[in-house]
Amino acid sequence: MILEVAILDVRAGEATSFEAAFKIAAPFIASIPGYVSHDLQKCLEQPHRYILLVQWQTLEAHTIGFRQSAQYQEWKKLLHHFYDPFPSVEHYVPLTSY
Amino acid sequence: MILEVAILDVRAGEATSFEAAFKIAAPFIASIPGYVSHDLQKCLEQPHRYILLVQWQTLEAHTIGFRQSAQYQEWKKLLHHFYDPFPSVEHYVPLTSY
Repeated sequence: MILEVAILDVRAGEATSFEAAFKIAAPFIASIPGYVSHDLQKCLEQPHRYILLVQWQTLEAHTIGFRQSAQYQEWKKLLHHFYDPFPSVEHYVPLTSY
Repeated sequence: MILEVAILDVRAGEATSFEAAFKIAAPFIASIPGYVSHDLQKCLEQPHRYILLVQWQTLEAHTIGFRQSAQYQEWKKLLHHFYDPFPSVEHYVPLTSY
């Protein structure tokens, strides 16, 4: 299992629109083979910051399966214009029994 | 429910020692009232980076209950010397039905 982590900084004043757009975008990522689950949470300390955590069965389900899909084009159109700066995305693997 | 997020950058060459120390430190955080669960994962892109995700029942369980406890002094002694830079910690709240 692979955890995708993205810290998302949304332009000032656009948090409500971003949240509405994310709701529309979520089914696009959820339809990809190898997608397991996702969780979008809002930061308490930084008012325009969110964290997106996505569980994937494999790294390639995200980096190839999703990013080369038609669904990713829809996701980009709906969400990427909200971000400033554009987020860096990292992947993490569990340490068993920690 | 509150999600504590810390991106941990461990000094080069100390990843194995850090992982061993974390195993010893984990019961200290887990003993705090309001602690729910934690997850330590290792970054694929940055070899000395980890993410620590801790679920707390409330913000204060972490910021007061843990940080003012004797257990936190043990946690600090075991772990803080591994970090460079010292991590910033943020808290996130779920967006329901996203």
